[in-house]
Amino acid sequence: MIKYYTKNPLLTKNVVIPTDERFEVVGVFNPGVHLFNSKTILIARVAERAISDNKDIIKVPIYKNGTFEILEFNRNDEDVFLEDERVIIKNQKKYLTSISHFEVFESIDGYQFHSTNVKIYPSDIYEEYGIEDARITKIANKYYITYSAVSPLGIVVKLMETTDFINFTKKGIILPPDNKDAHLFPNKINGKYYLLHRPASAYFLSPEVWISSSSNLLDFGNHRHLISRDAKYDELRNGISSSPILINNTWFCLLHGADSTNKYRVGYVLLDKNDPSIVIKRSVVPFLSPVNKYEREGFFPNVVFPCGLIKKRSKFFIYYGSADESISLVIVDIQELGL
Amino acid sequence: MIKYYTKNPLLTKNVVIPTDERFEVVGVFNPGVHLFNSKTILIARVAERAISDNKDIIKVPIYKNGTFEILEFNRNDEDVFLEDERVIIKNQKKYLTSISHFEVFESIDGYQFHSTNVKIYPSDIYEEYGIEDARITKIANKYYITYSAVSPLGIVVKLMETTDFINFTKKGIILPPDNKDAHLFPNKINGKYYLLHRPASAYFLSPEVWISSSSNLLDFGNHRHLISRDAKYDELRNGISSSPILINNTWFCLLHGADSTNKYRVGYVLLDKNDPSIVIKRSVVPFLSPVNKYEREGFFPNVVFPCGLIKKRSKFFIYYGSADESISLVIVDIQELGL
Repeated sequence: MIKYYTKNPLLTKNVVIPTDERFEVVGVFNPGVHLFNSKTILIARVAERAISDNKDIIKVPIYKNGTFEILEFNRNDEDVFLEDERVIIKNQKKYLTSISHFEVFESIDGYQFHSTNVKIYPSDIYEEYGIEDARITKIANKYYITYSAVSPLGIVVKLMETTDFINFTKKGIILPPDNKDAHLFPNKINGKYYLLHRPASAYFLSPEVWISSSSNLLDFGNHRHLISRDAKYDELRNGISSSPILINNTWFCLLHGADSTNKYRVGYVLLDKNDPSIVIKRSVVPFLSPVNKYEREGFFPNVVFPCGLIKKRSKFFIYYGSADESISLVIVDIQELGL
Repeated sequence: MIKYYTKNPLLTKNVVIPTDERFEVVGVFNPGVHLFNSKTILIARVAERAISDNKDIIKVPIYKNGTFEILEFNRNDEDVFLEDERVIIKNQKKYLTSISHFEVFESIDGYQFHSTNVKIYPSDIYEEYGIEDARITKIANKYYITYSAVSPLGIVVKLMETTDFINFTKKGIILPPDNKDAHLFPNKINGKYYLLHRPASAYFLSPEVWISSSSNLLDFGNHRHLISRDAKYDELRNGISSSPILINNTWFCLLHGADSTNKYRVGYVLLDKNDPSIVIKRSVVPFLSPVNKYEREGFFPNVVFPCGLIKKRSKFFIYYGSADESISLVIVDIQELGL
C-alpha cells in the first residue's frame, strides 16, 4: 500500500553546497514539487546555520540590506533565552538559529535528483529570517509558487511565479501575518481563483485551514474557515500539504497535522469540485506517520511534511520533508487510500 | 488646547437598554463616528454580561445558531482559569466574559446623543464572541464600516455598508485572523482603495499597523508593514484610531498605543497623499492620555480609545472609549497638534 523509496532519504544536506564559508547546511526539506518538461522539479528549502567555533557563541544569520549579517549571542548571557534549538529570545525579540532559502533540483526518473544550481534567496524585510516551504501550482502556462516569508514582522504568505524554473518573479505578500501552508487551485472555479491557507490566531485556537478567493491572484477576500482539527493527529494544528488536484471529480489535498507532542502525520481532505469551501471528507486516520529512522531522528524529530505530490497513473509520488532535515519519497496507491 | 466636554462621559452604560432580561450592560464605548444628514452618528460598541445570581457561577454569553446561549463556569472548578476579568480558559479553550454588539446613536449638536434603537448583532460563526469597534468611512455615496468579529476561530476584520444608518449589509471577512483596527481611505488613490489594519503575529512581535490595497473593497492585497512601535506610548502595540482625512494635503489619522503597563494613549500619524504607504510623520509624544477619573477607572482602566473623529472647521471632535466603559468627547485645536 505504502512503498517507501528504498534509497530514502532521497536528498540529504550532504549534497547541498553552503551559500559561503560562513555557513553549514542543516537541512534540505519540505520541497514544492511539479512536473516540468517531463522532468520532476523540486523547489527544496535549504536551511543553513552560521558556523561557530566557540560552543558558547550562537551565531544567527539574518538577511539585511541585500546581504547576510551574522549576529552573535552568548549562551551564558543572562538576557539570552533558548526557547529550543531553533529559537533564541533576547530583550523580548525572537531570532531563528537557522535561515532558509530555496534551491531547485530536477530528475528525469523521479528518483535521482541533481541541483540545477538555481537558488532563490531572501530579498526584502519580510524575508529577514528566511523563506520556507514552497508550494507549486500550474495555472494556464505559469507556475505559481506560494511560500512563507519569516521576519520579526511575522510569518506571511508570499507569491512568486515562473515559466522555466530558472527565473522567478516575486509578487509580494498575498496574506498578512501570521499565515503559511498556502496552496492555489490549478484553475478558476465559477470565475474565481481559490487559495487554501493556514492563519494562526495569536489570541485564540490552534491553527486550522481557511479558504479564500481572488480575481487576480494578488488580492484575496471572502476568507472562510474550512477544516477543523477533528482528528487525533491534528489535535494541535493542521495545514494543507499539497496543491489540489481532481481525483474522481473531487479536489484532493494532503492534510498534515501535529498532535500534542508535535509529531507530524499526513492524511487528506476532499473538497467539492464546484465549491471548494465544502469539505466532502477528511481522513481521521493518517496514512503517513514518522516510522522510519530518517523521519524519527533529525533537526526536528518525528516529522513527515509534504508540500506537494506528483500523480502518476494510479499512484501518488509524495516527496516530503523528513525530520526537518532531508527529503524522502513514498509511493502510495491511490485506490488504497479509500477516497 | 485640549478641551474635554464638561459633561463627560458623554454616554454611559446606564442609558443603554440590555438585549433582554438575562443581560446587563457593562459598557458603551469605542464608537465609530461620522456626519450624516448634518447629524453626528455614533456606532457604539455595547458590551453585555450575563447576569449571575451566584457569585461562584460566571455566565458566559455566546452567539450560536441564530441566538444567544449562556454557558456556565464555576470559579471553583479546577479546570476553570480566569486570565483576567475578561477572559476564561477551560480545557485550553478561551471564552470572553462579555459579548458586544453595536447600537446607533445620533445627535444634532454633537453633544447630546440619543439612541436610534438601531442595533446590529452577531450573525455568524465568526461573530460567536461578539462584534467590536466599528470604524466608518464614506466612499462615494456609501458608508463603509469595518469592525472586529471575535470567535474561537480568531479575530477577523469584517466589512458592512449602509446608506442610511438603519439598514446595514454585512459583506464578510476582508482580513483573516488575527486582525483588527481597520480603516478605509475615503477615496481611491492612484486607482486603488487602501486599508490600514493591525495584524497580530502569534509567533513574533507585538502588533503594528500595516497597509493594503484593493480594487473592489472586498479582496485585499499588496500588504505592507507601515508603522513601527517607535514611541514609549506604543511600546507594546499600536493601531490606527480614526479613518484618514486630508489635512494640509496629507493623510491624518489618530494612532493609539499601549505601553508595557497596557495604558492606552493617543497620538497621530501623517501619510503621503499620493502614496499612503509612506509615513511622513508619527507623533512620538501622545496628545491624549488617561487623566480623568472616567478614563482611569472602569471596566478596563487607563484607556482612551477613539475609533473616529469629526473635523469641524479648525477643530477635531474626538469621540472615544474611556476605560472600556463609556464614551467621552474631547475637542482639539488642530493647529496646536503641531502637524
